[in-house]
Amino acid sequence: MTKVIDFQTDPSKYRHWRIEYDGEIANLYMDVDEQGGLFEGYELKLNSYDLGVDIELADVVQRFRFEHPEVKTVVMQSAKEKVFCAGANIRMLGGAAHAHKVNFCKFTNETRNTFEAAETDSGQTYICAVKGSCAGGGYELALACNYIMLTNDSTSAVALPEVPLLAVLPGTGGLTRITDKRKMRRDLADVFCSLEEGVKGNRAKDWKLVDELIPNSKFDEVVRERAKEFALKSSRPSDAKGVELTPLDRQFTEDGSVSYSSVDVAVDRTNKRVTITISGPDTDAHASMDAFHSQGADAYMLRMARELDDAILHLRLNEMELGLIVFKTQGDPKRMQAHEDLLLNSKDHWLANEVLQYWKRILKRIDLTSRSLVALVEHGSCFTGVLAELLFSVDRSYMMEDEFEGDNREICAITLSASNFEQYPMSNDLTRLQTRFLGDPDTVDTLKGKVGEPLEAANASALGLITYTLDDIDWEDEIRIFMEERASFSPDAMTAMEANLRFPGPETMETRIFGRLTAWQNWVFQRPNAVGEEGALQSYGTGRRGKYNMGRV
Amino acid sequence: MTKVIDFQTDPSKYRHWRIEYDGEIANLYMDVDEQGGLFEGYELKLNSYDLGVDIELADVVQRFRFEHPEVKTVVMQSAKEKVFCAGANIRMLGGAAHAHKVNFCKFTNETRNTFEAAETDSGQTYICAVKGSCAGGGYELALACNYIMLTNDSTSAVALPEVPLLAVLPGTGGLTRITDKRKMRRDLADVFCSLEEGVKGNRAKDWKLVDELIPNSKFDEVVRERAKEFALKSSRPSDAKGVELTPLDRQFTEDGSVSYSSVDVAVDRTNKRVTITISGPDTDAHASMDAFHSQGADAYMLRMARELDDAILHLRLNEMELGLIVFKTQGDPKRMQAHEDLLLNSKDHWLANEVLQYWKRILKRIDLTSRSLVALVEHGSCFTGVLAELLFSVDRSYMMEDEFEGDNREICAITLSASNFEQYPMSNDLTRLQTRFLGDPDTVDTLKGKVGEPLEAANASALGLITYTLDDIDWEDEIRIFMEERASFSPDAMTAMEANLRFPGPETMETRIFGRLTAWQNWVFQRPNAVGEEGALQSYGTGRRGKYNMGRV
Repeated sequence: MTKVIDFQTDPSKYRHWRIEYDGEIANLYMDVDEQGGLFEGYELKLNSYDLGVDIELADVVQRFRFEHPEVKTVVMQSAKEKVFCAGANIRMLGGAAHAHKVNFCKFTNETRNTFEAAETDSGQTYICAVKGSCAGGGYELALACNYIMLTNDSTSAVALPEVPLLAVLPGTGGLTRITDKRKMRRDLADVFCSLEEGVKGNRAKDWKLVDELIPNSKFDEVVRERAKEFALKSSRPSDAKGVELTPLDRQFTEDGSVSYSSVDVAVDRTNKRVTITISGPDTDAHASMDAFHSQGADAYMLRMARELDDAILHLRLNEMELGLIVFKTQGDPKRMQAHEDLLLNSKDHWLANEVLQYWKRILKRIDLTSRSLVALVEHGSCFTGVLAELLFSVDRSYMMEDEFEGDNREICAITLSASNFEQYPMSNDLTRLQTRFLGDPDTVDTLKGKVGEPLEAANASALGLITYTLDDIDWEDEIRIFMEERASFSPDAMTAMEANLRFPGPETMETRIFGRLTAWQNWVFQRPNAVGEEGALQSYGTGRRGKYNMGRV
Repeated sequence: MTKVIDFQTDPSKYRHWRIEYDGEIANLYMDVDEQGGLFEGYELKLNSYDLGVDIELADVVQRFRFEHPEVKTVVMQSAKEKVFCAGANIRMLGGAAHAHKVNFCKFTNETRNTFEAAETDSGQTYICAVKGSCAGGGYELALACNYIMLTNDSTSAVALPEVPLLAVLPGTGGLTRITDKRKMRRDLADVFCSLEEGVKGNRAKDWKLVDELIPNSKFDEVVRERAKEFALKSSRPSDAKGVELTPLDRQFTEDGSVSYSSVDVAVDRTNKRVTITISGPDTDAHASMDAFHSQGADAYMLRMARELDDAILHLRLNEMELGLIVFKTQGDPKRMQAHEDLLLNSKDHWLANEVLQYWKRILKRIDLTSRSLVALVEHGSCFTGVLAELLFSVDRSYMMEDEFEGDNREICAITLSASNFEQYPMSNDLTRLQTRFLGDPDTVDTLKGKVGEPLEAANASALGLITYTLDDIDWEDEIRIFMEERASFSPDAMTAMEANLRFPGPETMETRIFGRLTAWQNWVFQRPNAVGEEGALQSYGTGRRGKYNMGRV
């Protein structure tokens, strides 16, 4: 699987999803094209999915937020007869490299989380209307919705058959959501996860697997009713006009570098690293959200967000050997902050809210990116507000101190904004500053008093905002040594270490999914019982069962 | 490594640890015998350790609690010159099977946790007095202590060099404790974990890696002072006499079964399962803790605890192919409850407290055992109080309903005691009943009203205490089918599923160590970069570095 995976798509290209807009309700039909797999070698039968199907779904969810402010309820359903969704495609999983499997699961997990975020952050509720078999990743799609409705017939059932059938976990949040979101009793969860055929009818309701069981004859009617009820409770505007997410301005060069309008991705294959430089805004901030809205997807804070998001996803799936991501910024910090301030001062405007919430998701995506992350605060940079947040997302940071010979750029400073104290919580539900100063909560209070104040190196260091400050004499050598050292470590050890150090403090359902559940799934994805030649994934569909080594670990 | 590992030892057999008792202070010296490895093929140089060293340590810690009520402070130190401890032995890790590595780490983690438990539960504080190099698992020993003192000289340093040196994680709680217990800033943690040579002197103190830095010349004196200060704050009795932990009454038979005085371990190799039957007490409960104390280690509640603990450890390390543990009890429930009640009513007696806290640790050990766990509540059983707790520890449970033909034993019932609501919290800090009814906290309140009431099958099932109740007609078949089914699943998938389903709800430092950290470490332990022929563990000591595949996952 060496094809370059593109995360950009739009409705004109969809092969797997269909949407019928009905005022404040969007009916989202899963209708996977069997022949539309991202790679060769498998057919997407029974509404099973691969990464390509999920890239479309992520695009759908994003467009609901930005292009359709009027949509208050999304009803997810199947366009196929007798099957809702069979989950991730097994032949795809059987043929995929370990790293692809892991990153595929991570992306699908992030996309599932956006269903829940849509309700919490934007008042847009996902209902899952299940008819037919809803198994594995299919039921995990349902679990991520806010309300699950099941028709009461002889064939419609929900199931997590991964363990008995495939020797892997329901790894897209399934195990965590049944116990932590739906609060199923753990012994019943054990039974449920051992049943290939799943559970239907009243038992599904009694075991908390679905919210409502509906006679088949009334199913569509009751689903419509519920959709309207949820819409009534929504805070989304009824009269707003959406913002079209137009295609990104993006150029790939031969060496793998990518340049967007405000984000530059410079690949250095020799040293196995990539530098992402974010350019601050060229123009002053809009005077109002109306003006921002008129510029639409070209407005800087939305445009740059989409570019950065695309860059991160591209690197994750297509550039596995670039183990270190270096973040830089260049631009006028005051102008940059003015752009963020417009959004922060207009949070009750639906579009300002959407852009800020999108930034929250992007920063979480960066936290979860299994590359070493470092930020270099150079002269002329604009690490302020949301861009300062990058400094608290990375594993470590370096900052220029005092003047550098021949460097006429403005002496660099870090500037905090109110957003750093509330706007972009991590998946552990703390801000990045709270996480950083877990042992010194007073420091967070001190820092609140510094909002808006440019903090040059000595100050930033004393306040604990930066790992190292270096002057002209040491800068180049120290950073080179660090990068060389980092490139000499085992990538696996780095991935595992970073997954631990980045998320201290409390855990949430989200951190549990990406921490405990994912780590165990990744372990299983290495075990011969699942992925070996006689393992369950290879044996699937051949008529023989996986041959297992019965030793426990 | 097919040798049977014995977890029973006593001071007369110690090869690696030496203790000097000094009234309320115990000086514990690590003095590993290089030739005393548990297996062939490595030497335990530089105070490095293997499972054998840790089995002794676990025994030391346990005896401090029971045999030495007068010990209020334990000072852990090295008896070697210039080295505190070099951590887990690398050659041992390089040669060990995956399952041994995983279970070795689990046991060492459990043993580290007992340091912290000794302070919280028993007022016994561990001080770590570090002189010399304290690296990897050595520093993780220190991290588990309540107070770390470092001498200020040119060679004494603390380090977590696993990632740069060995391409594995500091997996015995290290990554979690630096961020969550010591609350080190996460970017500094990233730096620290990348430094092979570690950190010494003031920087170690500034980075929160140690609690106190002491000039070399005053080291011993200040350590003694601190030990006395901690002892002053302790609630442990000064005048109590300890209880000697005498050798267990234990018989192995040829098929691998083990019988203890009150615990029977019946191995069924054909069906890859083992049945642990606990016999209730033969005699009435003691009238007082004085009488209990006179009987010492033979007192039922302590004797049976030690037998069960030994059985679990034996199965974990020596019987990897027995994938299912079946728990049964037989005995008089009233008499059984009277034995627990004596302890519950005497919690301010140091020995009652120690026995109850030991039960807490054993139940946690069962939760963390990577075997499928099932309980069968048969007629004549005594699942009451602490034994009822087993029902909430297992993955699922079955209970006999109504009379069984030809079975004259007393109709079975489950009886809750006050202990089920507070005495034995899981590692997530909830009781097992709170965990079970995470979605129905009212049920826990309802159950409190049932304390002392024998709940027969219909009642127990209605209250959610049991997974399945079966009558004479279905019992045998249903259980046979379940067991056959369980034996047909991939052991890895079961391990990973159980590690997720058993710990819903909140996370603590403990669950993070056993969940997130351990799961990632287990993943790393499967990766060629660590354990492959050219990986770091095999290359260690050969003069060449590990050869890594640089792709990120």
